[in-house]
Amino acid sequence: MTDWPRKGLIALLTDFGERDWFVGARKGVILSIFPAARIVDISHQIPPGDLRSAAFHLSCYFRFFPKGTVHVVVVDPGVGTRRKIIAVQSGGRLFLAPDNGVLSYVLRRPGGKRIHAVNRRDLFLPEVSRTFHGRDIFAPVAALLAQGLSLSELGPKLLKPLLLPAPRLLRWGESGWKGEVVYVDWFGNVITSISTACGTGIFKPVSGLELEVFIASGRQVIPLVETYRSLAPGTCMALWGSSGFLELAVSGGAAAGELGLQIGDEVAVRIVGPTAIRTK
Amino acid sequence: MTDWPRKGLIALLTDFGERDWFVGARKGVILSIFPAARIVDISHQIPPGDLRSAAFHLSCYFRFFPKGTVHVVVVDPGVGTRRKIIAVQSGGRLFLAPDNGVLSYVLRRPGGKRIHAVNRRDLFLPEVSRTFHGRDIFAPVAALLAQGLSLSELGPKLLKPLLLPAPRLLRWGESGWKGEVVYVDWFGNVITSISTACGTGIFKPVSGLELEVFIASGRQVIPLVETYRSLAPGTCMALWGSSGFLELAVSGGAAAGELGLQIGDEVAVRIVGPTAIRTK
Amino acid sequence: MTDWPRKGLIALLTDFGERDWFVGARKGVILSIFPAARIVDISHQIPPGDLRSAAFHLSCYFRFFPKGTVHVVVVDPGVGTRRKIIAVQSGGRLFLAPDNGVLSYVLRRPGGKRIHAVNRRDLFLPEVSRTFHGRDIFAPVAALLAQGLSLSELGPKLLKPLLLPAPRLLRWGESGWKGEVVYVDWFGNVITSISTACGTGIFKPVSGLELEVFIASGRQVIPLVETYRSLAPGTCMALWGSSGFLELAVSGGAAAGELGLQIGDEVAVRIVGPTAIRTK
Repeated sequence: MTDWPRKGLIALLTDFGERDWFVGARKGVILSIFPAARIVDISHQIPPGDLRSAAFHLSCYFRFFPKGTVHVVVVDPGVGTRRKIIAVQSGGRLFLAPDNGVLSYVLRRPGGKRIHAVNRRDLFLPEVSRTFHGRDIFAPVAALLAQGLSLSELGPKLLKPLLLPAPRLLRWGESGWKGEVVYVDWFGNVITSISTACGTGIFKPVSGLELEVFIASGRQVIPLVETYRSLAPGTCMALWGSSGFLELAVSGGAAAGELGLQIGDEVAVRIVGPTAIRTK
Repeated sequence: MTDWPRKGLIALLTDFGERDWFVGARKGVILSIFPAARIVDISHQIPPGDLRSAAFHLSCYFRFFPKGTVHVVVVDPGVGTRRKIIAVQSGGRLFLAPDNGVLSYVLRRPGGKRIHAVNRRDLFLPEVSRTFHGRDIFAPVAALLAQGLSLSELGPKLLKPLLLPAPRLLRWGESGWKGEVVYVDWFGNVITSISTACGTGIFKPVSGLELEVFIASGRQVIPLVETYRSLAPGTCMALWGSSGFLELAVSGGAAAGELGLQIGDEVAVRIVGPTAIRTK
Repeated sequence: MTDWPRKGLIALLTDFGERDWFVGARKGVILSIFPAARIVDISHQIPPGDLRSAAFHLSCYFRFFPKGTVHVVVVDPGVGTRRKIIAVQSGGRLFLAPDNGVLSYVLRRPGGKRIHAVNRRDLFLPEVSRTFHGRDIFAPVAALLAQGLSLSELGPKLLKPLLLPAPRLLRWGESGWKGEVVYVDWFGNVITSISTACGTGIFKPVSGLELEVFIASGRQVIPLVETYRSLAPGTCMALWGSSGFLELAVSGGAAAGELGLQIGDEVAVRIVGPTAIRTK
């Protein structure tokens, strides 16, 4: 039996889009096996095959769900190849995903973890296609996990799950950090690896500082503010986003486009002094 | 205790988009506090910060939900500033939103209302960000309201909630009305403030009339029809939409673009006679 | 009473989009009538009025849902005209849709079927608009069906429901089939009517064959592969998709655009021999 509270909640993150029947068919499979399952759509709009976006995305929401929730991530460019599928139990939560790094943030968190490969074909749909494991494997296994099936029933322990490279994050002189872009959100805000949780104490999570920002396109001096609307439209600024990471934003605009930044690009930041720019 | 039937239903309207983790994190918070909550997504595609669209949108669906439903609207360009948050009880339904006018239609309806400010920090998430009150304040408060918490537990009574200007609507001569555009839907249909419910009896909700329409780009004579497909493709027409407002539409096309109309633009309409244009 | 298991599940497929209040209002109506209903969104992004896409779409997911599920399809260009509405019971599943052919795949499947017209106005919302039957008719009737109302309560038996023309599918010589495009998915993959289930035994669902494909833009020789990533980016290929149909795809690209194909276009395919192209 399981040692976490069973809630029957299944949270789905995929890159399937929302136009076709792909997500619907998965829900049908889940509900056929476990009629009382409660399915929560997180997003189906991860850019196709973008493992780094999926991994970061997951790290931003899973903590807010009740223990016992089964978090399923199907961003799986290797579907139909020899890549493994893994199930992870950590901190009372369950994760089911391809073994391709999309669980990297979860796996790197401190604390005990159980990790199993998923290879019990008798748990899958009778016919497993080569192109749609979301329906044929992930959906039935998620339903069974939500019902309380133990990880040890899914397959053998897995010692070395695949991890994406950890986002770069280095102290830089006395008042700075070097990091990288880990996500670009829908509004074009640029989320960096520089986090309040990683010992970046020199940027206390307050406003009123002026920061020097170095990116490929050059150097800018911008203020650290508290909200996306603190400055006049078109102004570039930095702020601590809701997930605890330093973000670059443009008031009323899309920073990624304006600064020419994408996931993986280096961003170095250091304090140059109290801000001289008046916030609204 | 509450004096409305508790259903545990929470209906969400936001401008967060559906790509990122924002909506998912909110759902996690709701389900962590109230595991039996049933969350209904209305739309997360309100144009960012568009208070008028959000207010009209809400007015079109809330009546169809059961009493006891908690309607949450998070279109909140002032997040992190001093704007208040309000909870309203009216006609057996509950509303939770920033105090920025998005509840204007609800607040202007006849009938008793209870209105409270929401300021009990102990009800919010322990850490409240400056940029994501949807997760940190609206989600936990919505969960508590759906569980039956009384409005009086949220904060003091609020006497003057902020209202958007009422959409213009004036009698115009003997056979006409002057109004304005209140919404443009996904298909480009132009919804005006001229409503069957506002004493516009001279346009009875029937077809067969010819209308003279005055907009910034000029004057047109168009028929009042019953369905979007009543006329040949490309033809401009007027009809009573499903929410009871006079709409301008183009058969098979997008009226807003073709007529150059957007929210707030004036539209004047009068009857010129029985239609001479043959409908299909 | 009903002779199928009641699950309270309602699966929705529409072309309403997800921006406006249309889908939300429908859900409110369903939940007002049947508070315990569980609503599953399949897609609301069928191209407006595209009956063939809707019909194929439905055929791909309904089998995966539990018996007793009410499948509602509202792709209804004739809303407000004299077109009928039908309810179908088949294989323990229920279907509710306009009588315009969107149930063609369901109706053509072997096995017993009950088919009734839906004309009991007392079951609809008190005011039925001419433009939004999704809310005023389909939503309340779906709620009643999910609660267990028998089809015979909805209206008289219907003998000849409207069917779309069956997708073309003809043997072509000793090693080929002539079919047509039945769907183009979000990724641009071209799904043909050539199906493993229709006696296309000469293409066994294995890879390693080379196929000669004839389409309007000309003749190509392409390999039959097992996954979308089997070949180098940009390469055209054929594979058996997850719904059992032969698909044309371009690795990392959108085949429909690159091959100039859309729904209804003819596709003829025959075997030319074991593949000479190396897969990855």
